[in-house]
Amino acid sequence: MHASGSPERRPRLTPPIADVRRAVRDALSGLDGAGLDGEGPDAAAEADDDPRFGVLVLVGLSGGADSLALAGATAFEAPRAGIRAGAVIVDHGLQAGSAEVAEAAAAQAKALDLDPVVVVRVEVAASADGPEGAARAARYAAFERAMDDTGASHVLLAHTLDDQAETVLLGLARGSGPTSLRGMARETGPYLRPLLGIRRLTTRQFCADSGLVAWEDPHNTDPSFTRVRVRSTVLPVLEAELGPGVAEALARTAEQLREDSDALDGLALEWALELTSQDAEGAVALDVRGLAADPPALRQRIIRLVVQNEFGVSLERVHTLAVAELITDWHGQKALTLPGVRVVRQNGLLVFTPA
Amino acid sequence: MHASGSPERRPRLTPPIADVRRAVRDALSGLDGAGLDGEGPDAAAEADDDPRFGVLVLVGLSGGADSLALAGATAFEAPRAGIRAGAVIVDHGLQAGSAEVAEAAAAQAKALDLDPVVVVRVEVAASADGPEGAARAARYAAFERAMDDTGASHVLLAHTLDDQAETVLLGLARGSGPTSLRGMARETGPYLRPLLGIRRLTTRQFCADSGLVAWEDPHNTDPSFTRVRVRSTVLPVLEAELGPGVAEALARTAEQLREDSDALDGLALEWALELTSQDAEGAVALDVRGLAADPPALRQRIIRLVVQNEFGVSLERVHTLAVAELITDWHGQKALTLPGVRVVRQNGLLVFTPA
Repeated sequence: MHASGSPERRPRLTPPIADVRRAVRDALSGLDGAGLDGEGPDAAAEADDDPRFGVLVLVGLSGGADSLALAGATAFEAPRAGIRAGAVIVDHGLQAGSAEVAEAAAAQAKALDLDPVVVVRVEVAASADGPEGAARAARYAAFERAMDDTGASHVLLAHTLDDQAETVLLGLARGSGPTSLRGMARETGPYLRPLLGIRRLTTRQFCADSGLVAWEDPHNTDPSFTRVRVRSTVLPVLEAELGPGVAEALARTAEQLREDSDALDGLALEWALELTSQDAEGAVALDVRGLAADPPALRQRIIRLVVQNEFGVSLERVHTLAVAELITDWHGQKALTLPGVRVVRQNGLLVFTPA
Repeated sequence: MHASGSPERRPRLTPPIADVRRAVRDALSGLDGAGLDGEGPDAAAEADDDPRFGVLVLVGLSGGADSLALAGATAFEAPRAGIRAGAVIVDHGLQAGSAEVAEAAAAQAKALDLDPVVVVRVEVAASADGPEGAARAARYAAFERAMDDTGASHVLLAHTLDDQAETVLLGLARGSGPTSLRGMARETGPYLRPLLGIRRLTTRQFCADSGLVAWEDPHNTDPSFTRVRVRSTVLPVLEAELGPGVAEALARTAEQLREDSDALDGLALEWALELTSQDAEGAVALDVRGLAADPPALRQRIIRLVVQNEFGVSLERVHTLAVAELITDWHGQKALTLPGVRVVRQNGLLVFTPA
């Protein structure tokens, strides 16, 4: 640790700095590092001395305002929570000068005393998910590798409330149902998103107040990306016509929809196990009477779940509803042949076989 | 019945006419009139002869394109389903010439052979829900009266897919969670909405193809109504930036979210009954262990439901979450005093008393 702080190391505690730090503190409080006290003073002292001990988290850093603010706040909060914090910078190699951008971000991370600081250069392969999907896949693979190499337990991602609102709007436009409206989770496996309740304006202000100079990704203003159009056009129109607070409303909605679909997914899994039987030839059967008593949302989830788990097929809604009609609108239909699976009702069972 | 059809009585079967008629046919097929066959030929014949027998539905008619198309399609389909169809026209008295508009709509209904045709003049009182809410309340009261007076079992409402999409967007902007995204139901008590899957463009085309001249409500283009701005500005921007099909996507989403929240509401009601006990002084208690085992979406619904049913208080989400923390984050908190209700954890129970 340096004895004397540079301006960006000892910023005045402005509201944006307090807000981002609090968000990071809340996220870190759930990690095991905080629990070291439980092992007594000796264990904690040992952990302080030896970098092999204790929890290590990495900040996913692009150099943009969101992740730079996250890095600054994590550098401040992690030591106070008994947690080590480093950074991982992914150079996607997609833009001219990307190596320099990555090196500059690494230098900022080191200046914040984050340690270790890892730069991973990835190759973004062509993908069916388009260029954004391919870049995302390469990025997460790099995060996995960085966790393996450093022994880090978690990567902190800088998605903000604005990102969440944009995700919900993109999901709405796709219309793929509640799943697409869940938005991003605060925690997905080893990935934490401490800033989901923080506006993008606040991370920018954090940087300004901390003397941190953020990189402006030209992709963030390229209107050929749907997400950029959502950000630059759709959300501003919604705010203008429906009143302020739309982004917050979308994020709140995502949180509640996530709770709802988690609950239903969990119940569907539980009940599917009770209703399913399997024969030696690989046919799977569901008890019709049990399914008939379930509310439609659960009946449909159980059908989808069984087909997904047993045959690796994601049923479209129209197909799920056709299967459900074998229960709710039974008039002696013949077997239903769907992509990848065949369903027939016989002897009070829905029998699924590979198509 | 007239022997010779006027142009609007015998329209060519264009796709819009076929689509609207099919939607109405599907809605009417669920009504009891179709079940008259079950009572044997005598009962059906009796019903045909005597207007006191058989099912009667009323089309809620404003004279606008949506409800005029609904009236036209219902006049065609209802007799074929063994159902009598009339119309109810509500004169809100809010615009100059509203009585003439109502009379013109009544004349159109009669020309379509709808019978009875009822015009109800209402007084729209000032209301906390604003002018739109007040008009809605007066309108539904008029529908109730018309059903009482005519013996009708149902009122058919002309809300379209576009109305549904607008409702979802308005709900999103309010951010009041999954409930606000449910949109409108195809059936709410005696109210049926056959056109929820039909685009507004289709009802206009139905009218044009049928020679029906629709009234243009000036309120529909008055940008001081939020709904009008959603229609004229927000949805077009969404379609332009996110691609076509946004309205359909919003309507699909509403349908699935409605299923999800119906399922969770039903389970919450069932489980709340199992977990609740009540003492002589009006205190209500919920078993902590049972609630702790529930997924958050159900735990929160059970808490809300008990407080709503026992104390008539709608808990805000922040208050519901505070009560839930007495279960999920218990560290000996004191009693919680919320608007209208007091909650304390004691002896493995959450005890609710009036505040």
